[in-house]
Amino acid sequence: MIPRLHHEGPLEAGASIALSGDEAHYLRAVLRREVGAELRLFNARDGEFGARLAEISKRGAVVAIEARRRAPKDEPDVELWFAPVKRAAVELIVQKGTELGARAFIPVLTDRTNADRLRIDRLKAIAKEAAEQCDRLSVPRIGDPRRIADALLHFDKSRTLIFCDEAGDDPSKEWGGADGRAAPMTDAMREAKRGPAAILVGPEGGFTPAERSWLRALPYVIPVTLGPRILRADTAAIVSLTLWQAAHGDLAQR
Amino acid sequence: MIPRLHHEGPLEAGASIALSGDEAHYLRAVLRREVGAELRLFNARDGEFGARLAEISKRGAVVAIEARRRAPKDEPDVELWFAPVKRAAVELIVQKGTELGARAFIPVLTDRTNADRLRIDRLKAIAKEAAEQCDRLSVPRIGDPRRIADALLHFDKSRTLIFCDEAGDDPSKEWGGADGRAAPMTDAMREAKRGPAAILVGPEGGFTPAERSWLRALPYVIPVTLGPRILRADTAAIVSLTLWQAAHGDLAQR
Repeated sequence: MIPRLHHEGPLEAGASIALSGDEAHYLRAVLRREVGAELRLFNARDGEFGARLAEISKRGAVVAIEARRRAPKDEPDVELWFAPVKRAAVELIVQKGTELGARAFIPVLTDRTNADRLRIDRLKAIAKEAAEQCDRLSVPRIGDPRRIADALLHFDKSRTLIFCDEAGDDPSKEWGGADGRAAPMTDAMREAKRGPAAILVGPEGGFTPAERSWLRALPYVIPVTLGPRILRADTAAIVSLTLWQAAHGDLAQR
Repeated sequence: MIPRLHHEGPLEAGASIALSGDEAHYLRAVLRREVGAELRLFNARDGEFGARLAEISKRGAVVAIEARRRAPKDEPDVELWFAPVKRAAVELIVQKGTELGARAFIPVLTDRTNADRLRIDRLKAIAKEAAEQCDRLSVPRIGDPRRIADALLHFDKSRTLIFCDEAGDDPSKEWGGADGRAAPMTDAMREAKRGPAAILVGPEGGFTPAERSWLRALPYVIPVTLGPRILRADTAAIVSLTLWQAAHGDLAQR
């Protein structure tokens, strides 16, 4: 296994860079790598490079960057907006969502959530590690928590907001429209315009009737359902990202 | 929240049944339900019924079954065959796979797995709890671990085996065929015949070249890939079930 490390700073063949103390410790004490060991370094701006350990000791590590192995490329533009739930579920959303190519994770506070337990630094570390393992070039951004109404005040309306509205539909109503029932996400994706998207997944208790009604009245919001079973919030996040990547992203890419 | 309990035995309006000691304890000591409290009881054979607690004490609980609320119905027939990985990942596969409607979870041993850590009873409990929470009528079956070659000896060939063959394809080869590259699952599902399926997800290290080659030579096996990022085994299980349910199952159901 060749260790693959994300590096924020510029990457260029022939250059040398110092690793962070944590990375040096991980390579030396956990993976037991020595001078000459092969690495990969990557970031979204410069791509992925081969590299070798030039120095490694308790004081730190220096890496010599070799040839570029992958050029940077455009990645699908989908954000995941999620109402913070239990810590394990939030961590799962970030880990699996990173593997599924989400560009950013935005914690949004709704009437039925609070973010007391949200540890942004830990989520950033999970996103970085998942990106290193899953062969992405980018590491997704973890946004600061914000109230959903505030988040929508600054919403870029060229982005589609896919609203996973699992609960609350009245089965007697017609499909579609602000008052009607939400369509299955698979159908909605066939009709939605392509381009940047954000997926909104609610808290375990769902959105309040007031939230549902103003969200569904916004012109760039597409309400969707995710099948006949009730999904937990973390499952809904993974399933909706999968369906988006399959329909509009790169999951169908050969 | 009305507690929803799976009950193996026959369910019929007007009948009374005794709950298990665990269930009685859960209702009394955890949920603090008293005589008269409303419940739901369900199983795949009889459907879902309203019910009320008729007796509850330290010695047990008796439930009076009321009217049927949902008739039994056919559920999509997809099994998940998985190579046991770390305990947390296996538990996640069973929990999320239950929410995604898998009918059975079959642990299969490959050259790169062992099942030392597999706790079948715990997996059964996770499947039951997830089924109760997600509104399914059935509880998926947890199979006994078996070697993959043995499992395939008794394979019902009317079932399609979707082989998530993430690693090992030679990028210089053509698409398709026993030797060629596997197609993205989204494409493969459009062409595959409908009907019962099993999805096979390998261990973290992937299948060996020998396993890949005899698996891909079987006429009922469809090798597939799951996009450009490398998914962990648990993520691959969730993503492949999602894509199957979207294409051939009930995820697109209105």
